[in-house]
Amino acid sequence: MNIRQVMAQLGLLLLVLSGAIFIVALWSGFELVFASADIAAGERQAFIPLLLSAGIGCAIGVGLTIPHQLTRRAGQHTAQIGRREALLLVAMSWLIGAAVAGLPYFLWAHMTDHDTPAGLSASVVENEHIWQSFADCYFEAMSGLTTTGATVLSSIEVIPRSILLWRATTHWLGGLGIVVLFVAVLPSLGVGGKKLFRVESPGPTPEGVRPHIRETARILWFIYCGITLAEILALWFAGMSWFEATCHTFATLATGGFSTLNASVGGYRSVSVDVIIIVFMLLAGVNFGLYDHLIHRRFKSFYRDPELRLYLIILAIGSAIVVISLLNTPITTTTGETLDPSVGSAVRHGVFTVVSVQTTTGFCTADFNNWPQIAQGTLILLMFIGASAGSTGGGIKVIRVLIAMKVMVREIERSFRPSVIRSVKAGHTTVAPELKLATLGYILGVILIFLAGMFLLLFFERHHETMSFDTALSASAATLCNIGPGLGLVGAVENYSWFSMPSKIVMSLLMAVGRLEVFAIVVLLSPRFWRGD
Amino acid sequence: MNIRQVMAQLGLLLLVLSGAIFIVALWSGFELVFASADIAAGERQAFIPLLLSAGIGCAIGVGLTIPHQLTRRAGQHTAQIGRREALLLVAMSWLIGAAVAGLPYFLWAHMTDHDTPAGLSASVVENEHIWQSFADCYFEAMSGLTTTGATVLSSIEVIPRSILLWRATTHWLGGLGIVVLFVAVLPSLGVGGKKLFRVESPGPTPEGVRPHIRETARILWFIYCGITLAEILALWFAGMSWFEATCHTFATLATGGFSTLNASVGGYRSVSVDVIIIVFMLLAGVNFGLYDHLIHRRFKSFYRDPELRLYLIILAIGSAIVVISLLNTPITTTTGETLDPSVGSAVRHGVFTVVSVQTTTGFCTADFNNWPQIAQGTLILLMFIGASAGSTGGGIKVIRVLIAMKVMVREIERSFRPSVIRSVKAGHTTVAPELKLATLGYILGVILIFLAGMFLLLFFERHHETMSFDTALSASAATLCNIGPGLGLVGAVENYSWFSMPSKIVMSLLMAVGRLEVFAIVVLLSPRFWRGD
Repeated sequence: MNIRQVMAQLGLLLLVLSGAIFIVALWSGFELVFASADIAAGERQAFIPLLLSAGIGCAIGVGLTIPHQLTRRAGQHTAQIGRREALLLVAMSWLIGAAVAGLPYFLWAHMTDHDTPAGLSASVVENEHIWQSFADCYFEAMSGLTTTGATVLSSIEVIPRSILLWRATTHWLGGLGIVVLFVAVLPSLGVGGKKLFRVESPGPTPEGVRPHIRETARILWFIYCGITLAEILALWFAGMSWFEATCHTFATLATGGFSTLNASVGGYRSVSVDVIIIVFMLLAGVNFGLYDHLIHRRFKSFYRDPELRLYLIILAIGSAIVVISLLNTPITTTTGETLDPSVGSAVRHGVFTVVSVQTTTGFCTADFNNWPQIAQGTLILLMFIGASAGSTGGGIKVIRVLIAMKVMVREIERSFRPSVIRSVKAGHTTVAPELKLATLGYILGVILIFLAGMFLLLFFERHHETMSFDTALSASAATLCNIGPGLGLVGAVENYSWFSMPSKIVMSLLMAVGRLEVFAIVVLLSPRFWRGD
Repeated sequence: MNIRQVMAQLGLLLLVLSGAIFIVALWSGFELVFASADIAAGERQAFIPLLLSAGIGCAIGVGLTIPHQLTRRAGQHTAQIGRREALLLVAMSWLIGAAVAGLPYFLWAHMTDHDTPAGLSASVVENEHIWQSFADCYFEAMSGLTTTGATVLSSIEVIPRSILLWRATTHWLGGLGIVVLFVAVLPSLGVGGKKLFRVESPGPTPEGVRPHIRETARILWFIYCGITLAEILALWFAGMSWFEATCHTFATLATGGFSTLNASVGGYRSVSVDVIIIVFMLLAGVNFGLYDHLIHRRFKSFYRDPELRLYLIILAIGSAIVVISLLNTPITTTTGETLDPSVGSAVRHGVFTVVSVQTTTGFCTADFNNWPQIAQGTLILLMFIGASAGSTGGGIKVIRVLIAMKVMVREIERSFRPSVIRSVKAGHTTVAPELKLATLGYILGVILIFLAGMFLLLFFERHHETMSFDTALSASAATLCNIGPGLGLVGAVENYSWFSMPSKIVMSLLMAVGRLEVFAIVVLLSPRFWRGD
């Protein structure tokens, strides 16, 4: 194991993160000078913490590269980064990266005098801010980088704009960003980017991205930025401020779910905003490799993609079930109003919620805690299915569900016709036997880790009066599959602040495990991985 | 597809069932003459229905064999029964067999004047008996033959003894009986018993039963009868009447769970009864092929069996978790008494419940509805794991869990060392690639069918006020995995009478699907199966 090499790469990553924090800090300084008084008041508290965080992150980053530099100086031949190193680097970059990304929250909470009523809500004035515990900052940062969108904040509006922007930026960087950075930056350093990509790229993609990784990464990067601009403009036209439009765009494209309002997207009470965000959530849930096809006018391979089709079919069926079950149910929005049952509101809130949940975004317009059980069950199921491989979404991924289905149909046939050899296909590509096993194994692995998470939460919260089965179940699913909100006490209008510290650490790990396709983290627990025999 | 052949075999099976009913009828007649007045009063209502049922079943059985006889007469060459025929026969023998096995309940309920208070409880006098609907009789009979133990009876004591004996006998026949019958009887008819055995024998057994099926079947049969006698004696010594001892023995060895008391085993308030039943539930959950080893003094291959070990380990861990979680919880027994928290009662009721649930028996001594959530979660998990392959227990089976675990560990290793080939072993036998895939596919299949069942129950009971998520969840699991009682409205002191007819049909099918290892029933839905191309 070439630890130095890994540390050096990790250092570079932290430098990138710190750079991003620094940019946000500059924006904060800009607002401090030019923005209105009340905004400036907030930035006065945020500017220094942001600068400090950037500095600290930068220092750590440089520090990590030093050992490698020394060996370089010593003229020692530096080995190519191997598969093990790659896995370790990926895991560490999320586990450590979240710590650095959480610094701004932590420093802001500690360097701000929360008694001065600078438009702060009562809840904050009374007791010290939750971000004064680092575990909560780590949870929030991990939730951002893993594009989960689960928050510990009970009141979001009181947080300075620049901090909220950073919070959204962690989504954007996490979503596709880090994938692309890994693939675009590292190969140029002569590091085995391919292996990293293999690990980072979410899941098996039949219409995979083209071999020349660095170029592909660039393309993905451009696509990502393009769609980002498109949504920012769309939301701005729909009436959001540039700031809000940017934050919500970052959260949408990363399928994250952090909003700038306590009431999430529902707070805008705007149909056009809902529709725009539905559309872009859908886009974010598609394998970005497919957009590459569109750019090169290979339309057939786009609309013939089996995963894309199943993805849309599942969304359609899920929406149908939820909307129908809502027809006779009064819907309570995240702003607290209760709407009389109507087809319009059923469709609007039903579809939004289904898309938000299956793409694992986690934006909310309605509180689905009091929705019919069939609707809730469907949502939980969609959480697990998740978005497409190669998208910014989480979950098991549609392609895996597709392969698993076909394998099981084949197994059933085998029971009465064992002789017949019929290969399992996804689109035009035949699924290799190893991939079949790997896919089923992966799905079972997710289910096992979900159960483990659920039991740990039940255990750590055993003394909590109102802790319920569905709260633990949905909290484990919502973090492992990177959705954000769940049911019960982690529902659409609730938050994760009330969990005990151990639970928060468990869920932070669940988020990382889910985002890194389980194995990248789990391997670290295997002795063989470290022995390296 | 040689339908005639299948019908003929099915007919033979029904003749066997009818024979069993006839024997019970004889016993009923015996009691009618010699037993005490109140017992005789019950038998006066039961004797005729039993005789009638035997007659009807016999008639149907003979009728089914006729077409085959004719072709035989016509001197046509009768084809060996093929794999498809075997699967169809197995599925039909449970789906049709349950209908015949339910006749005694149906006829008794209709031929008895429920207004005469012959020691009948109020609930029965007031409204007509639930068994007057055939769906309920079918549910009860299927629950018996699949050794599930879920009942629609709200008061069991009022049922005549002979009917209760038949109810227990369906367990005993279902448990191992039908497996052995299929394997011992059919080959002697020159029918492909091996194929049937392949389907019937629950799951992949590493220490499988020896090739010569007919002989093995005989051995299994003797073992089964031997253990049966042992438990009847043990329970009689513990103070049960011969009748009660027989009924509970049948229910234990089949891992069924039908009791003669509303309060189930808890009704005896006897530690010795609890301990005896715990021991025999444990024995019933072991692969019967292993007892064959014991008989032949191959002790090593007995205690070295990987499944046996994991089976005991899981039971130990499960018991530990539940017992510890019960230490500070007041336990309510099935008789309604509430015991103060004590180590003694925690161990007694905790261990009994864990063994009863994992072996998928479903006897109850305590109402675990108000147990801590960790305990309930553990019980649900144990329901799915279930007993050993080759036992009378249900669930996924320990060996499959073992294989799945090893496969997943291997998959994790593959992610950082893809080159290394390391074969997955269960004991000394290497697991073939097909088996790996089949195992993971099977487990996923069970989970899918469980979810489907849960959603169907949620749908059919959507207008039920107190229907809850955990009720639907545990009802689906408890029927699919052949346990019996679940949580919520199907808890230890509840019953399945309140479900709507569609739900009862769904659960009847779940029981059959679970008992026949899913595929035997599911294949019937595959068009290819019928087309036979």
